[in-house]
Order: sequence, then C-alpha cells, then structure tokens
Amino acid sequence: MLPFARVAIVGLGLIGSSVARAVRQSMPTVRLSGYDADPAVRDTAIRLGLVDDVADQAGAAVTDADLVVLCVPVGAIGAVAGDLAADMPADVIVTDVGSCKTEVARALAEAIPTVTVVPAHPVAGTERSGPEAGFATLFAGRWCILTPAADAEPLAVARVGEFWRRLGADVEVMTPEHHDRVLAVTSHLPHLIAYSIVGTASDLEAVTESEVIKYSAGGFRDFTRIAASDPTMWRDVFLSNREAVLEMLGRFSEDLAQLQRAIRWGDGDALFDLFTRTRAIRRSIVEQGQDDAREDFGRSHDPAG
Amino acid sequence: MLPFARVAIVGLGLIGSSVARAVRQSMPTVRLSGYDADPAVRDTAIRLGLVDDVADQAGAAVTDADLVVLCVPVGAIGAVAGDLAADMPADVIVTDVGSCKTEVARALAEAIPTVTVVPAHPVAGTERSGPEAGFATLFAGRWCILTPAADAEPLAVARVGEFWRRLGADVEVMTPEHHDRVLAVTSHLPHLIAYSIVGTASDLEAVTESEVIKYSAGGFRDFTRIAASDPTMWRDVFLSNREAVLEMLGRFSEDLAQLQRAIRWGDGDALFDLFTRTRAIRRSIVEQGQDDAREDFGRSHDPAG
Repeated sequence: MLPFARVAIVGLGLIGSSVARAVRQSMPTVRLSGYDADPAVRDTAIRLGLVDDVADQAGAAVTDADLVVLCVPVGAIGAVAGDLAADMPADVIVTDVGSCKTEVARALAEAIPTVTVVPAHPVAGTERSGPEAGFATLFAGRWCILTPAADAEPLAVARVGEFWRRLGADVEVMTPEHHDRVLAVTSHLPHLIAYSIVGTASDLEAVTESEVIKYSAGGFRDFTRIAASDPTMWRDVFLSNREAVLEMLGRFSEDLAQLQRAIRWGDGDALFDLFTRTRAIRRSIVEQGQDDAREDFGRSHDPAG
Repeated sequence: MLPFARVAIVGLGLIGSSVARAVRQSMPTVRLSGYDADPAVRDTAIRLGLVDDVADQAGAAVTDADLVVLCVPVGAIGAVAGDLAADMPADVIVTDVGSCKTEVARALAEAIPTVTVVPAHPVAGTERSGPEAGFATLFAGRWCILTPAADAEPLAVARVGEFWRRLGADVEVMTPEHHDRVLAVTSHLPHLIAYSIVGTASDLEAVTESEVIKYSAGGFRDFTRIAASDPTMWRDVFLSNREAVLEMLGRFSEDLAQLQRAIRWGDGDALFDLFTRTRAIRRSIVEQGQDDAREDFGRSHDPAG
C-alpha cells in the first residue's frame, strides 16, 4: 500500500524536483502538486511536467494533500509552514528535507503547533541548484534520517519512512540533536572548510586566481565542487546549526594546529601515521556503497570528454 | 621527430606506470626500460608488460637511456639519483615528476651535479597507488610544469617539454620557488586539510566512526578521496615544501577564523558573499577543462552501480 496518495512539494529546486521525479518513478499513481515562491521556477516545473499541478499560491498546493514536503532553505521553513497552516487538511503530515533538525523542529512547532510533523533529512545532493538539476535516482542508496519528536505518532513516522524507502533511500531514526552533531562533522564542516579554502586561494598575492584555476587538478578542484553549492541553503545551515558547527570546527582547528606543528618540526612519522589511518576510512566508505568505487570518483579521463 | 628514443622509468607506481603506458601509446617505437626498488612491483610490471625491460638493479635500467624519469617520492629523489650516477650515459637528461621543485632541484644538484636535469611536475593523479593503478590518459589535458634552472640548456628543456606534450599534457615553465607556492595552495594545502578533517572525524566522542562513514555522502566523502592518497608521497611533500605549506596554512587559518566569527555572530551576509564568490571559481575550473563538467564529478547515481 502506498504510504501517501496526494503529495504536495513546496520548493522545487534540486531536492524538491528530485523528490517529484522519484515519486513519479516509484509511485506513479500518487497525485503530485507543487509550488515554488519563484515564478520562473514554477514555469520550469510546468514545462518539465514535474508535478500534476503547479499552484500559483502556496496554499493551493496543499489543500488536498496527505503529505506536504517542505523543500526550502532551513531558514525559511518556519515562515513557509506558517503561511500554509490555514490551507492544510487536518490529517496532513508535514515533513521537510532540511540539513539542520533542532532548529527546524523548533520552527515548525512554533509555526504549526497542531499539525503532525515528521522532520526528515535525505543525505544526498550535488553542487547544482534549481528544478532542472534534480533527478529521480538522487536518493538511491543514500540515507534518509528522520528526527521525530519523542511523542510523535509511530504510524506517521512509519509512513514517512516508507515514503523515503520508496524513493530508494535507507531510513534511520535519531534525535534532532544527535543528527545535528553527526551532520556537523560529515557535511557542514566539510562545506565550511571547502568554502574557506576556495576563498583563501582566490585571495592571495603570491599566486594569481588564474594560476589557482589552471593547476586545480592537484586536489583543489575537489574542494571547489562542494564550494559551488547553493549559497542561500548553506548560509542558513551555518546559522541554524551554529553550536554543533562551532564545536566541530574547534576540534578541527586543534587537529590542524597539531599537523602544522608536525610539519614545522619535521615529524614525518606523525604525518605518515595519520595519512595511513585516513586511507582506511576511505576504504570503509567505498565498501559500504557510500561513494563511487571507481578511482577519482569515476571522473572521465577521456581526453575528448 | 621523437624527443627521446630510449626512456628509463625509475619507480613504477601510479605515476611511473602511467608514464610507461602513455609512452607506449603515443610513442610506440620508444625503447622503454624500468626499475622499482620493490621486487613485487617489478614482478607486476613484468606481468603487465609495462616496459620492454624491467631491470633487477637500478643502474641496469639507465645505462642506455637518453631520458631518465624519476618517479619516486620526493624525499627519495636525491638518493636514487645518486645511486644511478655511475651508470648513466654522459649525454642523458634526467627529469622527475615530484610535487615539490625547490627541494628536488637542490637534491639533484647535489647528487648528480654534472648531469643535465630538467625537473618536471605533471599536475595529475588519483587516490590510488601502485603499478596497476596507472593508465595511459592520466596526463591528457592536464598541465605539466617544468622548473629548469636559470642556466638550463634550452634544447634539453624543449625536449622534455615535447615529451610531456606527446603524453597529452600542456606544458608550462616557471621557477621552482613559484611552482612550490602555486602547488602549496592548489594541491598541498587541500591534501593537508583533507587528511586533517578525516582524522578529526574519526576521533570524536559524540559521533562514532561508523556514523561518519554511514552519512559521508553529505560532503565528507569528497575529502576522504584525497585523504586516501599515498602516505609516503605526501609525508615527503609536506616535509619538502614546508615553508610554502606553512605560509598558505597560515592564510587559511586566518580566513577560517573569520568565518568562525561570522557564524558565531550570525553574520549571514558575510557567509552568503563568500559562498557566492567561491561558486564562480568552480565555474571557471569547469570552463577551462580542469574538471569534469558533469555534476558530482560524474559520479554514478545508478542504484545498481
């Protein structure tokens, strides 16, 4: 049995449009409605046929839904949910795809206190943005983390979990607080560091920006991919998950200072030991199917491509 | 006309074996000899037919060569060149593939003071190591930087440049000092940071290593690829290019502290501005063909793959 029959997607960017495509593919009988605050995105959604109905106003997208999926930046979730409150059916379940769960839980509890909410975070994405960037297999084999409140209805949690499993994801449940610390280290800190080093590299006197671009294949280019992610989304992530990000950043800075010291004092053994340990972690990630097993992420080395 | 007729490759790992394969493909009439200090690597080289002759002793590989390509970790280059000195023909040209050029120039000048040396650095690689990891197109469309001494023979520089062009690379010439600062930012600092964050993530109390691996698709996995690179090679890089790496690391730490402050004080505009600027750099790298234009590096999103 389908977990939901009428799904409304609010926000039709990379994630929202991927949810729409994945629903179409895995649950073709589901009635899909959608809305985006940007008229150009709505036009694109119509042109691509992402959903059955693209509404002109947010409320019109949700009046008939049994699931509302909020796919907007985390800083906007509370306001968007509040705007929809009057138009949602009484038995609707609201979920989201935000990268910070403590702040989202707080914002939704404030904006729609009487609505059943099951926050979710599919740990998936690319550096692209917008409705044309999405694709149906984005969530395949990735984890989707649900962070229901302690007193959440078990049936609602089970239905949202089943929805994500249908989209190809594996589902895990944890508290919003633990989620935010896990993601601070596996996602938020890596993005912060990537943004930072790309900023540093573009801002040197001794090396020009064009040299940085030209010789980026030595490693730098990997960081620029992450640092090309959506600026609004990521601004909101850092502001919303501030405490956990600052905690992980503190640990990282300590460890980096230790490495700096090892380089300054020529401690080759300390460097070698760390570099050997980190290699094992890569191996585990590939073994568990969380990254492409092909070398260099499967990048093309075809001179023509 | 071929730049060289008899090429000896000393060190048959990822880079050395890729040079061998690329020579075979682009200059099939070249006589290739090879040597590796590790007997198991030599056996693999024989099995794969990487070169025409795999020598049992380093000297035997170079007696007849007009080009010797040293493909060993930078910390070993001086000693390896010294061991070969007595067996090299008088008119040989020696080049290398090391990631640090000031230290390499010094080591080679000391070890083989009377030999014509044209140091080189192909800015290419993957996270894999060893003779089986190499492939013929590794250098295609990548830059190879030559760092000849100010008084180097122009003809020798031209011949080594032509050699690399034949392997598919674009060739640039700069001083070893400038090379080391450029690579400190485009390659060495990214590797150091990647190693560091992977170390940090595996060493937390609040988040387990298995959680880090499980949820790595949020960005962390990109860093683990770089942090899976060869430990010996990278230890040597950081010890050999210490000054430039510490300089760039200082700049990075300053910039990261500023970001930390922006997060702590909720300065969303500062974050948004940086995140917009970094996106433009990614665009330039893709436009200039220095990275895969496909999203997510062209990673497979096929659930089966």
